[in-house]
Amino acid sequence: MSEATILVLDAEPPPRLGRLTGRARILHADEQSLARQLPLADVLLVWDFLSDAVRDAWPGEGHRPEWVHTASAGVDRLMCPELAASDTVVTNARGVFDVPIAEYVATLILAFAKDLPRTWRYQRDRQWRHRETRRVTGTKACVVGSGPIGHAIAATLRALGITTALVGRSARAGVHAPEDLDRLLTRADWVVAAAPLTDATRSMFDARRFGVMQPSAHFVNIGRGALVVEEDLVRALTSRWIAGAALDVFQQEPLAPESELWTVPDLLISPHMSGDTVGWRDELGAQFLELYERWESGRPLTNVVDKHRGYVPGH
Amino acid sequence: MSEATILVLDAEPPPRLGRLTGRARILHADEQSLARQLPLADVLLVWDFLSDAVRDAWPGEGHRPEWVHTASAGVDRLMCPELAASDTVVTNARGVFDVPIAEYVATLILAFAKDLPRTWRYQRDRQWRHRETRRVTGTKACVVGSGPIGHAIAATLRALGITTALVGRSARAGVHAPEDLDRLLTRADWVVAAAPLTDATRSMFDARRFGVMQPSAHFVNIGRGALVVEEDLVRALTSRWIAGAALDVFQQEPLAPESELWTVPDLLISPHMSGDTVGWRDELGAQFLELYERWESGRPLTNVVDKHRGYVPGH
Repeated sequence: MSEATILVLDAEPPPRLGRLTGRARILHADEQSLARQLPLADVLLVWDFLSDAVRDAWPGEGHRPEWVHTASAGVDRLMCPELAASDTVVTNARGVFDVPIAEYVATLILAFAKDLPRTWRYQRDRQWRHRETRRVTGTKACVVGSGPIGHAIAATLRALGITTALVGRSARAGVHAPEDLDRLLTRADWVVAAAPLTDATRSMFDARRFGVMQPSAHFVNIGRGALVVEEDLVRALTSRWIAGAALDVFQQEPLAPESELWTVPDLLISPHMSGDTVGWRDELGAQFLELYERWESGRPLTNVVDKHRGYVPGH
Repeated sequence: MSEATILVLDAEPPPRLGRLTGRARILHADEQSLARQLPLADVLLVWDFLSDAVRDAWPGEGHRPEWVHTASAGVDRLMCPELAASDTVVTNARGVFDVPIAEYVATLILAFAKDLPRTWRYQRDRQWRHRETRRVTGTKACVVGSGPIGHAIAATLRALGITTALVGRSARAGVHAPEDLDRLLTRADWVVAAAPLTDATRSMFDARRFGVMQPSAHFVNIGRGALVVEEDLVRALTSRWIAGAALDVFQQEPLAPESELWTVPDLLISPHMSGDTVGWRDELGAQFLELYERWESGRPLTNVVDKHRGYVPGH
């Protein structure tokens, strides 16, 4: 096999890629140059995983990369019908974000249970205000999304004594079918959105679903912004249908300074960082390198996305 | 046995005590009347566990209650040489606070790891600021205090993948001796004070001990305020000897509005509430009732405090 060309979508060189020096030609593209450079690529590495550029630049006809890897768990930002219909293999960063995101979700649930946001507010005002808080042991969580991230969240919450139900696209061992969701929502203390963004999950958390949750329930979204109808969540919080929520992902990112979301009572806003622990870029670089070595030697790739479903099946 | 007299130190009647109607005479005392009423009591129930009144009111001579129960884990506020020397049995609320406090400590450690306080500050300022945070899995904690609360904290932190060392008054299975403390502090990411307040533990967290901790370390005190030399902690934080701290207990409670502690950078202040989850008063009432029934029928009491050591031995 002659020297392959890896096209990297990002200005910054990913860590560890230097190890491929002499084994591959590495080119960099930005959003503007991507369409022009794409015909040169055997492999496209979508390192700037917040970009929508691949969808726009994907060639309908002609030369297409043999393989596209994205340094994210979700593939919604790059998938388009032409890519789905092509022979190009798509892989994702499955595995890198599981434990960090699970810890992040546990953090938010515990912070709600222990009323931490109010504690900080009282500290700012130099107020000593004792309150009774909640024990998480014995409470119930419903996690929507049964991939590795959903499973990792469930494992961490269960370790804290929280009875946790997982909801996936279909019922299987340890996973509930979507038909069970509404029933589970009526009982859950904590509802966590951890699903990939697909036609089936888009806007699934809407007024009706917030309406069936308990007034004491808290909602957490670490999946994709478009899983949630944001205006419905605002209504649910301001009308006290639910007690609180935390969003790490949004329909528009970064969230604009003028967004009304910043100041909704009992809504915590974080800037899409739940999975990003120190060393994450390094891990993503190492993961691509490992996949590249499989591809280079003709071995089958892992983390292969089902392009029509929009995620890696199985688990 | 004729009808016994239970003297309750608190204005409010504790929950569940009504069940003793017809079996015991229940009197209430406040801090002012305690010394006068104490000679009437067979049993003293220290329901207002923040009060120091028992120490002042304890009779050197004459009639003393047979049994004193305090609705707290720590007995430092009521213990005095005359009580320690007397035949009076002292019991505490061992067990009620373990899981809530363990969850609270986990909450604080996760909040530090995930940089939540800064997230909330940025939200207030409508700032989208992505940061890399820490994974707690694989980090190291050192918990000082090897009673039920220390053990519960260790169990919860270990469930989150944190390697946790316990330090007690002497080495035994699963517990390090005080001689190991400094070595453990030099390696710990999280240091938790969960010891009873005794002559051996008073002021144990001082400039020297904060000095041996890592610059990235965080310190949490859910034990007693006097375990910590507060001015040394302030210095450790302002000089960046350590990265952050959380205090739930203080030398003076409630913390005065003019205290400098409220505004120390990276110091979280909460109002002595780590163990107080919804239903805690009910649990404390039920616990006293159970002990009372043992005492009434002549069976041995549990939760008996070693009055010279200042805690319930064993575990």
